[in-house]
Amino acid sequence: MSLHFIAGGAGFIGVNLAAALLDRGHQVLVADDLSRGTREAMAPLESRNGFSFVEVDCSDPDLIDAALGDRQIDEVWHMAANSDIPAGVADYRVDLRQTFLTTAAILDVMSRRGIPVIHFASSSAIYGDHGDRAIFEDIGPLQPISNYGAMKLASEAQLRAAKEAYLERVSVFRFPNVIGVPATHGVILDFVQKLIRTPDDLQVLGDGTQQKSYLHVSDLIGAMLHIADRNEPYAVYNIGPTDEGVTVRFIAETVRDAFRPAAQIHFGEGNRGWVGDVPKFRYSVDKLMETGWTPELGSTDAVLRAVREIVAQEAP
Amino acid sequence: MSLHFIAGGAGFIGVNLAAALLDRGHQVLVADDLSRGTREAMAPLESRNGFSFVEVDCSDPDLIDAALGDRQIDEVWHMAANSDIPAGVADYRVDLRQTFLTTAAILDVMSRRGIPVIHFASSSAIYGDHGDRAIFEDIGPLQPISNYGAMKLASEAQLRAAKEAYLERVSVFRFPNVIGVPATHGVILDFVQKLIRTPDDLQVLGDGTQQKSYLHVSDLIGAMLHIADRNEPYAVYNIGPTDEGVTVRFIAETVRDAFRPAAQIHFGEGNRGWVGDVPKFRYSVDKLMETGWTPELGSTDAVLRAVREIVAQEAP
Repeated sequence: MSLHFIAGGAGFIGVNLAAALLDRGHQVLVADDLSRGTREAMAPLESRNGFSFVEVDCSDPDLIDAALGDRQIDEVWHMAANSDIPAGVADYRVDLRQTFLTTAAILDVMSRRGIPVIHFASSSAIYGDHGDRAIFEDIGPLQPISNYGAMKLASEAQLRAAKEAYLERVSVFRFPNVIGVPATHGVILDFVQKLIRTPDDLQVLGDGTQQKSYLHVSDLIGAMLHIADRNEPYAVYNIGPTDEGVTVRFIAETVRDAFRPAAQIHFGEGNRGWVGDVPKFRYSVDKLMETGWTPELGSTDAVLRAVREIVAQEAP
Repeated sequence: MSLHFIAGGAGFIGVNLAAALLDRGHQVLVADDLSRGTREAMAPLESRNGFSFVEVDCSDPDLIDAALGDRQIDEVWHMAANSDIPAGVADYRVDLRQTFLTTAAILDVMSRRGIPVIHFASSSAIYGDHGDRAIFEDIGPLQPISNYGAMKLASEAQLRAAKEAYLERVSVFRFPNVIGVPATHGVILDFVQKLIRTPDDLQVLGDGTQQKSYLHVSDLIGAMLHIADRNEPYAVYNIGPTDEGVTVRFIAETVRDAFRPAAQIHFGEGNRGWVGDVPKFRYSVDKLMETGWTPELGSTDAVLRAVREIVAQEAP
């Protein structure tokens, strides 16, 4: 039985990961500053054997180190990040501190304490817009167009240098758009909340043709554990569904049908919702598939399931 | 006549760049915290028309902004960085603050003030070890093995996102090993200083077979101005000589012959001098050559000239 430390563990991915690690019989220590994650999200974990939580700002190595006390950490899962891309566009310091300086601080603590293994939640946003080219893990050039993507790439760069110097094992998971509960952000939650405020009318940013692939969080956690179990010294994998995704129109209609069947949907213009949002994306998960992993849900089924879950979360 | 701001302008590259910009009739404002650059290095610039200097920590946007006062900056040249790779290996905070947070701070100030153009000194160290593959600008994956290279890559990532949001024009120069005066670090200076301390004996780290290409700073400045003059919206270029370089043995012998002909050279073992030092490197400058640029000096001539200059600097 080993002790896993999850930085940012009170967030959407973190609480799902914590549950899965507890299911495997590990001890789990979650660290979170509760700026985005919540105690409420961790409620189902609190009573479980082996779970503990510390409230700490993971961008400060001294605070993390103090919070760890004399615990011996075996593996680190770094899920701490700003997940609100537009907030990072408005103020670069959000991603600088929450997405990048957390990486610097966590690596600092790992170096001091000799913690040998880290698993990192990177992002498909490191790639930027490659037009029609399929996006494999080793594609170049890397051209993130949001501060969020830039700070995820900056984090990967520092992990790579740390691997050379002192780490034994690194996993870099390049996340797709992930959906499920507890939802804290994202297009489905946004639509559900809009329909709570204005039940007859759903305003959609952009013309609805924007297409993205979505992975359900249950498949994401499965992929992360699958990759971690391979024990590669430096594992870099795209994670995602195998389809080319669904449109914003499909998501809007699914939310409407599940929640407010009588509502009217109104689309805007253009196929970009905000700066940093890439319209279409040929994200290859061939490398991961070749290791024997397959997602249980494609984008369509992931959206259908997540819409049900998020409607239940927001309008119980 | 326009005003060019050089961050880190009291360093080796910065003072050579400042002189070249003054030669072109521009005004030049150098900012430097003098942690590595010196007033002595700027002495030949002080009396020239259009030159001014402010002592400021370029990792703090408020300090930069205050130092700029009501000056209207037309173009920024970001040359501020830790240039001591082993120092960054020993303490990641050195490269974090001096190499990366300078980029974040400078971009912050540019955003606030609407300064539209930046030229950035990146590095071949962003690529890492690619074995026998030729290193073109768009190669992947990027796998820096030093904190220095990681923080240069992190800086490029942030520049790319800033270009999407508010910058008009960006140049990214991926520097090779650059030699010349005023030398503040590097293998030639190291050997000359060793021979000042122990005139009969030169101890060399590694077995001397390590091979690198070197560009003389005069060719580097020429290449930077050549690229900047092309006015590309987002220019990324490797800069370097066209040869595959010279060995450490050649450099040691050249320094010995020029400075202490009777000294004995003693080599160590292995072909890596320190963590983060890539043994051999097939760095392609084809993209730059195709724009009509050629270096005046190959690695051999660059070393011969720099050795003379650095010997004169250290033992005048």
